[in-house]
Amino acid sequence: MHIAFVLYPGMTALDLVGPSQVLCCHPAVEAHYVAGTPDPVRTDSGLVIQPTTTFAELTAPEVLVVPGGGGWRRALDDTALVDYIATAHPAATWTTSVCSGSTLLAKAGILTGKRATTHWAVRDVLVELGAELSTDRVVFDGNVVTAAGVSAGIDMGFALAAAIWDEPTAQQFQLGLEYDPQPPFDTGSPEKAPAEMVAAIRAAVRAA
Amino acid sequence: MHIAFVLYPGMTALDLVGPSQVLCCHPAVEAHYVAGTPDPVRTDSGLVIQPTTTFAELTAPEVLVVPGGGGWRRALDDTALVDYIATAHPAATWTTSVCSGSTLLAKAGILTGKRATTHWAVRDVLVELGAELSTDRVVFDGNVVTAAGVSAGIDMGFALAAAIWDEPTAQQFQLGLEYDPQPPFDTGSPEKAPAEMVAAIRAAVRAA
Repeated sequence: MHIAFVLYPGMTALDLVGPSQVLCCHPAVEAHYVAGTPDPVRTDSGLVIQPTTTFAELTAPEVLVVPGGGGWRRALDDTALVDYIATAHPAATWTTSVCSGSTLLAKAGILTGKRATTHWAVRDVLVELGAELSTDRVVFDGNVVTAAGVSAGIDMGFALAAAIWDEPTAQQFQLGLEYDPQPPFDTGSPEKAPAEMVAAIRAAVRAA
Repeated sequence: MHIAFVLYPGMTALDLVGPSQVLCCHPAVEAHYVAGTPDPVRTDSGLVIQPTTTFAELTAPEVLVVPGGGGWRRALDDTALVDYIATAHPAATWTTSVCSGSTLLAKAGILTGKRATTHWAVRDVLVELGAELSTDRVVFDGNVVTAAGVSAGIDMGFALAAAIWDEPTAQQFQLGLEYDPQPPFDTGSPEKAPAEMVAAIRAAVRAA
């Protein structure tokens, strides 16, 4: 099973590494970290990823995973990136995104009239791009799967593993990755965090 | 603040990207992805990371983060890697590990008589290497912080951010990364998963 983990400058590494670490637990997965060119891609935490594959080399992946991140707004104008997503989707078994990556799916015309989620700070952008907004953490609409902000990609990874293979397989991966989260605080959503904190993060994400 | 995120072949990308994504939310952090040589490092999910810095170029990071992963056993025999950890530790404000990365701290002599945690499948290895085992998800012993398997590095990231800066800062990062986990299953620890699943994963991790 060929999975395309899509790369672009300024993306958030955890958006991609969350689902990739989960899905790559399966021995049948051939993971491709794909970009427009073979040049290294710098993410928004300074991690530099070396693509394994170019868009031209993998036109029909079975699964497509599109991250979001600090570069999301510039990425919407990256024609090669948006075209790749639009072209790969019709042949894919599953098309997925994490965080503001859903704005890229929308820009590629994949989310029109579809239920989808995104990072909480850009929910209105997703609506403007034609999606039917959900605030759920992981949303399945047909073969399109979207996750909320950053860390939600891990939850999506396990849900997707259950859909691709079966629940016991996904449960085994969860044990292997010791995914028994114990967040030290309870500020992980805008409904739970103080209003001034929500305003500060919202401004920062939208200015990126 | 210079943070050394340590790289080696076969490491688990999520072990490192979890804490790096959290800590790099702070604008004062200069993230260095350090390896023995400038050559790209292939992780156990096929993600290839381009080092930004070599061990020789960053001898005194303020924070050291050591991942675990499929390559953990071979890494114990990697003298350059173990020496780097041993040499950097005395000058570091915080020395940390995720998953089986704690076996590398132990091999470097840092965990002798210290409370520490690790991936559940290699707990006995950590004891053999001289640590005082804890099965907690995140363990602070002085300025040494260890996390349990893979995804526990995210929880460690927030706890460490609170210790380095303060709790409101860490809470703000948690909101930014939308860390409000909703695992689809409840099999993330050996105490919760079926015994045959525990045995299968234990064998796989130890054979790596």
